Parts: sequence; C-alpha cells; structure tokens
Amino acid sequence: MYFISTMILLNNETQLLLQIIQMNGECTVPIVELHVIEGYSPKEKQRLGAALTEAVRFVVPAAAELVTVLIHDLPAQDYYRGGTTRSPAPARSDPAQLVRDFLTAMEARDLARAQSMLGEGFMMAFPGSGPMTSLQELINWAKPRYNHVAKTYQGFEAMQGLGDVAVVYCRGTLSGEWPDGSPFDGIRFIDRFEVMDGRITRQEVWNDIAELKARK
Amino acid sequence: MYFISTMILLNNETQLLLQIIQMNGECTVPIVELHVIEGYSPKEKQRLGAALTEAVRFVVPAAAELVTVLIHDLPAQDYYRGGTTRSPAPARSDPAQLVRDFLTAMEARDLARAQSMLGEGFMMAFPGSGPMTSLQELINWAKPRYNHVAKTYQGFEAMQGLGDVAVVYCRGTLSGEWPDGSPFDGIRFIDRFEVMDGRITRQEVWNDIAELKARK
Amino acid sequence: MYFISTMILLNNETQLLLQIIQMNGECTVPIVELHVIEGYSPKEKQRLGAALTEAVRFVVPAAAELVTVLIHDLPAQDYYRGGTTRSPAPARSDPAQLVRDFLTAMEARDLARAQSMLGEGFMMAFPGSGPMTSLQELINWAKPRYNHVAKTYQGFEAMQGLGDVAVVYCRGTLSGEWPDGSPFDGIRFIDRFEVMDGRITRQEVWNDIAELKARK
Amino acid sequence: MYFISTMILLNNETQLLLQIIQMNGECTVPIVELHVIEGYSPKEKQRLGAALTEAVRFVVPAAAELVTVLIHDLPAQDYYRGGTTRSPAPARSDPAQLVRDFLTAMEARDLARAQSMLGEGFMMAFPGSGPMTSLQELINWAKPRYNHVAKTYQGFEAMQGLGDVAVVYCRGTLSGEWPDGSPFDGIRFIDRFEVMDGRITRQEVWNDIAELKARK
Amino acid sequence: MYFISTMILLNNETQLLLQIIQMNGECTVPIVELHVIEGYSPKEKQRLGAALTEAVRFVVPAAAELVTVLIHDLPAQDYYRGGTTRSPAPARSDPAQLVRDFLTAMEARDLARAQSMLGEGFMMAFPGSGPMTSLQELINWAKPRYNHVAKTYQGFEAMQGLGDVAVVYCRGTLSGEWPDGSPFDGIRFIDRFEVMDGRITRQEVWNDIAELKARK
Amino acid sequence: MYFISTMILLNNETQLLLQIIQMNGECTVPIVELHVIEGYSPKEKQRLGAALTEAVRFVVPAAAELVTVLIHDLPAQDYYRGGTTRSPAPARSDPAQLVRDFLTAMEARDLARAQSMLGEGFMMAFPGSGPMTSLQELINWAKPRYNHVAKTYQGFEAMQGLGDVAVVYCRGTLSGEWPDGSPFDGIRFIDRFEVMDGRITRQEVWNDIAELKARK
Repeated sequence: MYFISTMILLNNETQLLLQIIQMNGECTVPIVELHVIEGYSPKEKQRLGAALTEAVRFVVPAAAELVTVLIHDLPAQDYYRGGTTRSPAPARSDPAQLVRDFLTAMEARDLARAQSMLGEGFMMAFPGSGPMTSLQELINWAKPRYNHVAKTYQGFEAMQGLGDVAVVYCRGTLSGEWPDGSPFDGIRFIDRFEVMDGRITRQEVWNDIAELKARK
Repeated sequence: MYFISTMILLNNETQLLLQIIQMNGECTVPIVELHVIEGYSPKEKQRLGAALTEAVRFVVPAAAELVTVLIHDLPAQDYYRGGTTRSPAPARSDPAQLVRDFLTAMEARDLARAQSMLGEGFMMAFPGSGPMTSLQELINWAKPRYNHVAKTYQGFEAMQGLGDVAVVYCRGTLSGEWPDGSPFDGIRFIDRFEVMDGRITRQEVWNDIAELKARK
Repeated sequence: MYFISTMILLNNETQLLLQIIQMNGECTVPIVELHVIEGYSPKEKQRLGAALTEAVRFVVPAAAELVTVLIHDLPAQDYYRGGTTRSPAPARSDPAQLVRDFLTAMEARDLARAQSMLGEGFMMAFPGSGPMTSLQELINWAKPRYNHVAKTYQGFEAMQGLGDVAVVYCRGTLSGEWPDGSPFDGIRFIDRFEVMDGRITRQEVWNDIAELKARK
Repeated sequence: MYFISTMILLNNETQLLLQIIQMNGECTVPIVELHVIEGYSPKEKQRLGAALTEAVRFVVPAAAELVTVLIHDLPAQDYYRGGTTRSPAPARSDPAQLVRDFLTAMEARDLARAQSMLGEGFMMAFPGSGPMTSLQELINWAKPRYNHVAKTYQGFEAMQGLGDVAVVYCRGTLSGEWPDGSPFDGIRFIDRFEVMDGRITRQEVWNDIAELKARK
Repeated sequence: MYFISTMILLNNETQLLLQIIQMNGECTVPIVELHVIEGYSPKEKQRLGAALTEAVRFVVPAAAELVTVLIHDLPAQDYYRGGTTRSPAPARSDPAQLVRDFLTAMEARDLARAQSMLGEGFMMAFPGSGPMTSLQELINWAKPRYNHVAKTYQGFEAMQGLGDVAVVYCRGTLSGEWPDGSPFDGIRFIDRFEVMDGRITRQEVWNDIAELKARK
Repeated sequence: MYFISTMILLNNETQLLLQIIQMNGECTVPIVELHVIEGYSPKEKQRLGAALTEAVRFVVPAAAELVTVLIHDLPAQDYYRGGTTRSPAPARSDPAQLVRDFLTAMEARDLARAQSMLGEGFMMAFPGSGPMTSLQELINWAKPRYNHVAKTYQGFEAMQGLGDVAVVYCRGTLSGEWPDGSPFDGIRFIDRFEVMDGRITRQEVWNDIAELKARK
C-alpha cells in the first residue's frame, strides 16, 4: 500500500528528524517576516530570503530547512511614512557577481571592462605592492613576478560591511608561469573586495607567491 | 523660543534627510519581524537585531537607521509545532568573540587555553606550511621564521557560512622580530576561521612575511 | 429620518449585542492570521476560514460572527524555507463531499463509481457483518436483511483525525422494504468514514434494524 | 567525530525528509497566528494550538510537525474594541473530558454525579428507546436488556458543532451480562454527545445488542 | 568623489537627525498595520495612512517622517468573519472636501447645489440667529446684516466625532460690504460642521461682525 | 430554559446586527496593529486605542464596536533600529485635559496656575481684542465687557494638528453679569487652543457677546 507505507515512512522520518533536532537542541522554527514596498525582482527577493535565513542561523541553531521567511511585498499605495506614500529603493546589485565579472575581465586582460567596474577612490594592494590606484600600476607590478596567472576558486563569501559597503572574499589557488617559463600551480591566494553603489572601491590580495619563489 | 527653533530645525533636518534619501533612492523603511521562542538573552537578541539589519541592507539600500527589527519573543506556552509546545534552542555563541579569545591565547602562548577552543577535525594552514592539525606543529613551523610576532587588527568580519559553519575573517599587520634579532612591522596578514558548535575547526592564514624576507 | 433612525437602531442593536455578549462573557474578538503560499482556490480558502473559525470557537466562546480569519496568501516568490522558494501543496479535497458522493453512488447501486472512491486497504463493518473489504460482500450481507433501503440525513460532521486521516460522520434515518415486502422507515443510523488522500479507507455503520426486526 | 557525523546525519535526514515531503507534495509550512486577550491557561492554549493545527491540516496536507501556531497573548490593556479595553471570555471546558467523566460516573452508577453534568433540555436516545429525558428512564429501559454492561473505548473524537454546541463521539465495544446471566462482549457501540456551556444536552447511542441478541 | 561625499553627508545628516531625535526624546519608530478588505482607492488609503499617522502622533511624539503605516489589503476571498467571506464597506467620503464644496456653492449663491449637500435633520446657527433649518432662513437672516460677504480661509481641520458623525472646522476672515455700502474685511470667523453619510447635518458659525458693527 | 433562550436571543441579535450592518454596508471588521516600544501607561495606550479607532472610522464606516486595535508592546530589548535597541519616547500628555485644567484655573482666577500652563510664544485673541500675549492683557480687555463670566460646555474635541501641534476645540454657552449688574446666559462661544510639548501656545475665542450687547 504505497500511500500507507510512505505515510509510515514520513512518520518515521519525522520522528528521526525530531530526534536529531532534539539531539542538536534545535527545537524551534524561527519565522522572519519582511515588510517592503513592492518592486523587487524574484531574484532580489531570493537574495533577501537567503540573507535573512543566514542572519537568523548566525545566532539560532536551526537547520536552514526550518527557517521560514515571509516577504510582505506592499504596493506603494499601501505603504505610508509621514502619512504619504513612498517609492521603493532600487535593490543593490549582487556584489559577489560584480566581483566574479571583474575577475573574469582581469583574467581575460579586458582592462576597459574591468576599469568600468571600479568606483571613485578605488585602491588596491597586492603582496609588497603598497597602495595602487590604477590597473596599469598592477600590470607593471605583476610583470617581473610572473608571465601569466589563472585562479582556481575554492569559495566566494559576501556580506554587508560597515556603512554602505559590501564585502566580498574569494580564495583558492593560483596557477601560471614564472618569468623563466617554468610553470607553477596550487599557490594559495585570498582576495578581499569592498563594493559600494555597484562599483568596486577596494581590492586587497594575499598569496604565497613569494613563499614559493623563495624555495625555487 | 527653544522648542519652536528645534521644531523648525527638526523640520529642516527632516527635509534635508529626505532630500538625501531621495538623492540616494532610499525611500523605504524596511521592517523585519522575527518570531522565536522566548529564552534568548538581550545580548543574543542584539546579535540577531544586528545580523537581520545587515541582511536587509545587503539587498535594500536603506540607511541602517531606517531598518527596524521587531523580535516577537513567544513564551513556550504560546508556540506550537505539530500542536505541541517546544523549548527554544540555545543560541550559538558569538564566533568573532571565540576567535578573538583564541588569538589572545595564542599571542600569550597559552596553548592549553587555545587548544580547548579547537573542535574535532581541526585543521590549519599557514604560508607554505601545508595542512597542520596541532598547535605544536605550528610552533615548530614558526620557529625558523621569526622569534616572536604580534598582531595589530584592522578589522574582524563574521558571517554564517555553509551548513552549520560560521566564518570569521580578521586582518591587519604583523610586527615582531626576525630570527637574527632585527625587528619588523607593518606586514599585512589575513586569517580565515571556521567555527562550528562553539569550536574552531579551521584556520587559514595568509601574510607578506616571505615577500618581506625576500627583500632583506 | 431614515439614516438617523437606522443609526439609532444600530446603536440600540450594538448595545443589545454587547449586553448579550457581556451576559455570555463573550468580550473578545479572536483574530486568526494564516500564512500560506498562494495557490488555494476561493473554495479551499473558504474551507480553511470555516475550519479555523470552528477551531477557535472550540476553546474560546466567541460568537462565530466575531471570529475574524485573515489569510495571507503569499506568492511563491515571497515565501522561503532554507532560503529557497517553495511551491504550495495541493489542497486536500473535501472529505464530507467525497462521502456524500459515495453514499449517492451506493444508493443508486452505481458500484463502479462507488468502488472508484475507495482507497487501498479499504475496510467496512455493518451491524453483525464483521470486517468486509469489498462492496460485493456488502451486497451479499444486505440481501437477506432488506430488499432496498434509503437514507434521510440529519447531519454530516467532518474533522481532521489522527495522522493524515480525515473523519466524516453522518446520521439520520433509514426507510425501505423488508424481505417480506412490508415497508419500514424512521430507523436511526450513523456512519463513520475515514478518508485519506482523497479516498475512503474505512466505513463503519450502526443502526437499529435488528432492534426493529426483533419487534416485528 | 561526533558533531561532524551528526551534522552529516542531520543533512541526510533533512534531505530524506525533503524528498518525502516533495514525494507527498508537502512543500509548505503553514503558519497560524492567533491574537487573543491574555488570560487562557497553558492547557487551554494547548487545546487551541492542537485545534488550529488540525484545522489547517483538514485542508492543507502538511505534516503536523510542519504546522506552526503562534499565540499572541495580549494583555487586556493592549487590546481595544470600540476604543475601549475588553476582558477575555473564560475558555470553554474540554467537552471530551466532560463526556469521559459522565461515562465514568454512569458506569459507577453514580447517578447524582452524572445528573450534575446534564444541561437543561437534556435528551437521550438508545436503540429502540425513543427520546428519554432522565437517567431513571434509562435505568428502566436497560433493566430487561442486560444485568450490567461496561465499555471498552476505541476512540474519542470532539469538534465544535453548529451554534455554540460542541460534539463528542466515542466508540468501542460493550461487555457485560445478559439477563439470563450469560456473558457477552465485543459488541460494537458508538455514542454521540452534544455539549453546551459545559453541560451535556444530548446523548445518542447506537450498538449491536439487538443484532447479537437475535442470534442467541 | 560624489558618492563618498554624499555618503558622508548622509552619515552627518543621519547623525544630526538622531541628535535632534534624542533631543526631543523621539527614539521610537511606531509601526501601524491596518488589515482591511481590498476595495479602497489609493486616495481613500491615503486618507487612512494620514489619519492613522496623526492618531499615533497624538500620543507618541514621533516625527511624522518616522511613523510607518502598512495597509494589508485583503482580497475578499482571504477575509472571513463567522467563517464566511465579506465584501468591503464603501469608504466614507472626505468630509472636509464636502464642506469646501458647500461653502463654494453658498458663496456662489448656488442654493440648489448647496441644498443637495444637506442631510435630513439639517440645523444651522449663526450669531444671534437661533436654530435655522433651511438656507432660505439664512438668506433672510443675512439680508439686514451685510450686502455680501466672502471668506478667506486660514485653516480646515477635520476629525471623526461621536457615533458616525465627522466634524469639520474651518476658520479665517470675512470681507464684504455693509448694508450702507461701506466695505469691511479682516473679521474673524469660525464654522463648525457635522457630516453624516456624506451629507452636512449641522453648521454652527461664530464671527466678530457684531463686535465690529458696534464700533462703527 | 435560560441559556437556550439567550442563545436564541444571541442568534436573533446577531442576525439583526448583521442585517443592520448589511443595510449600512458595514461588512468589514478593520483590524489595527500598533508596534511600539514598551513603556506607555494603560491610560496612554487607552488614548492610542481610541485615536486609532477614530482614525479608521474617519474613512471606513465600521461601527466602533467592530474596530479592533492590538498594541504590540515590545520590550526595548526586542526592538532595534540601525541594529541597536532604543528607549521609548515619553508619551505626549492629553491636550484636552491640559485645556480643561487651564480653563478651570482661569475661571477660578488662579492666574499663576494658568500662566504655568502657557508655552513660549503664547498668543491669544478674543472678539475685537487683537493679539494678546499675557493673561493680564486679557483681564484688562474683559473688565469693561462683563463683571464675571462662567462657561457651560457642550463639547471638547481634540486632534493632532500640523507639525507637532495638537489642537483642542471646546464650545458651549456663557453666563455671567454685565457691567450694569444685569445677568446674561446662553451666549454661544467656541475656543480653539494649540498645544505643544504639553503647553498651550495659542488660544482663540469667538462668542456672541457683542451680538447680545447690541440688543440691550
């Protein structure tokens, strides 16, 4: 009897999940309600749903499956401040996506495109480079260090930082070719980006290139 | 007339703020309601309030001042799942605080205390060290590199990561003494930690020590 | 003065209702809010509205008129669990309607249609019949008892039972013809049905036929 | 590694539960919020939590475990109708418990106690008895039918009925002694009760006694 | 750097606003949620938003800018009382607008139009006039007092009064011509209107005409 | 049967009320939820409950009895703006009560007490007086007009005005003694007050004294 058996199965699983939940002290189902003015896209709301879920789980040890987020999307005509309606603020773009696009453009040496993603006051720092403010400085800095380099990513992590700045971290390994033409790979790196108003305003890079070079 | 003038002032400021708000397209006051079972401490709720505010601002460009979070703290007797009451899950401890305590213990060379903060399966990686699983390995790795080192912090950043892992980043500069007794400082570093169930399970470190050493 | 008089009337009535309300200790207007993913039909929501109203009144002695139910029907893009959207579960069909249709089909001797409404593991029991699993068994059991029988209904009552089973009761009186051709009517009966996944899985019947037969 | 393994276990189970949930089309976690004036006991709220959960599941096929009920218990000073505060209506007593107590008193032949549980206009009907309004009538009706009888219960089911009436069903089997001193048992019965204002106003009984007697 | 500067500006302003807010003890952002059945026009909801904002500010000293009103506009199919859906009540018309239209019609001596705005039981009182029930009475009363008069408005104020009556006040100054042909102006007046079911049912007028006449 | 009859009565009344409600198109039960930081007194919340009820009824023609206001009183630790907790703003005092106290003090010629209720920038205007800024001016103005005067009140009406100003109207009749010692009474008057930060900042008075005097 299919449905009976799945029902019993469901009950078993539910029991099992509850045991685990008890085991892990996860007895609660946090519920988040967000009230915003209508106008965000499904993709933007998806980002909100995910960010709010992680925010709760940062403090409450609930399995993600058990965190519910309800977005109450109010038509402008149903939202008042100071007794007058408001129009919604356009969503901030996804800073992690911006950083991915920037890194892709840089790897393809598409400097024009990469440049277009930089905000005013852009600053970057690479190992031993000191502060640099233009991509050309970076090209010059890199020339004596390697002929070319490519990144293999282990992970991207993004969060809202102080003020209006979003922070994006990415890390992984570098592979490429030394100035003498010999290859290298598996060199650990990590980048930290600051993004504001949809532009990159800061990039800091750390890696083990010097460590490896010293061993050659 | 004090109160009249402050009223006018208030109106002026309010106008001004609104202009700026319009200028920045920030016309909305997002409201977040969180429903949880009673039992979290004011400090834990403070962390929830801050995390939820940042989660909203990650997508909605509202000034933090304009994001409101309401925590509806339900007595266990007012919360039901499956028609039965539940007890709240104890909050996760603050992972950034755990990392600060760990770094303090390490700097004080209090290995016992530092060890007690590590979770099962702990792994760490330093520039050129490869994976290490014990603090003693780290001590041995560091010995030929410097006599002692101290950290000056520029910033800590923490977020919920994948699964049940919290991620903490801290960055800044190193100062200390080379094996030959000469001092160094201002060397950039960044650490990435993973925390689970209140213990550190992973530490990865990047810095410019090799870069600087190469120049000596 | 029409509107004045109705206003006065309204006030009188309101006063009167309040007096009665006080008299009956009914001073509260319970409010129920239900949050579900968009996708239920007006008829299904009507069933939810009625069921939630009765659930409240089962404990709170409020006149039905004073119980308000608000259904917050969330578009899938506004509902997240585990940070991802969900699609709504199709509603359970109305078990009372299913039972009415089954009884109609049986009375019309439309066994094929009636059979199609039975779920796997179907079991039924009539006075003195012991457990039966097919409609044919029922026909055979009934043959020596009466030539034909019709039901007059006094009431139907349905509720959610244990697990995923819905329970439906109907009661009333039987009329028909004894094997000897003489008529009978006014014989009390009650049926209890169990419904799962839109199929009848159990029918139990009690009536006074034997009581009356004994008197012939 | 205990916590790792339980985490993996949790993930497995969560996956498993989700598969089952998908399999059964149960993708939603309905949330019910009830706003009432403070003053109900934990036990009364427990009854509300259970009744609301069942009401939702009567239409929405969610596993009970996944239905969340939040009771917002408002102090009288925070609840206004017509701009004035209200006091809460005392909860209705549990009608199923009243019926259990009544049946216990009857089985113990404690007529005084049983009588005290009957409301004005009480009516009862047993197989072939016609309407009876006093317990003494019942005693007289039963005398020629059996020397004594005891009930074994298979189940109790209670719900809010029409108007202010609650309905309670109980069913099971009868055992006892025929007038000739021979024993009987396993005789199916079902009772239907109506309860109003904490008193029983109607009892209807069906059973197979006549059916069995006819076979002796 | 445009965005940097505006960010700093925003921060300054936010700081400033907060200081003022603290200075005035306004540390809270009251949030009002209104649940009504769908069907009110944006203009009607605008009136609701403004009225609710003022209602809160009547007690809570929050800058209007900081009072948020959310209107949850429920489709009829999502709103239940007594377990059945309801249709929304048509909104009350704006009583202040009705009064403006009435005063305009009177000033234009369009008595037919003015008359059409009066409800049954209409009563008016002017200085020394005693109760009058028709506009013709008013014309007769005014004849010996002035040849013509026009109103300059300083302000209109409207509120819900007792029962179903709305109250509208308007005040300002009168200008016109005395019976002897000499002009007057700057004479203070105030009118109080009662409105019910979209009609004016009462007008009371006070002014300084007699005061000024006495001085001539 | 008392409870049966009251039940029937209740049903009748409910039917009756509903007919009237339909007759008046009042089919909705608006619900208002207010979220504020804990700290307002029952009396202050009572004022909020009443003001919000009137605000809704200013637009929605619901009988006051059918407007429900829920105040969600959040402990400071459960309310966050900008991710930090806030303390509640002390409530504004009741402006109508302030005005009553002021009028009482004036009638008792307790000028010191009355003066203490005036705010900076206080201005008042009486028929023909022109602007006055001190109570002494008022005394001088009144001397030639009457020996003494007392007020009989028909009604007080208060509302939030523009900016942070509350407005209070009171009206009724004057009785007292003319300079020649002859009595008067039944003279219509109306006062308009502006209140800010708990002090009276403006009083305007209109009455028919000159009208009556002219007739002597």
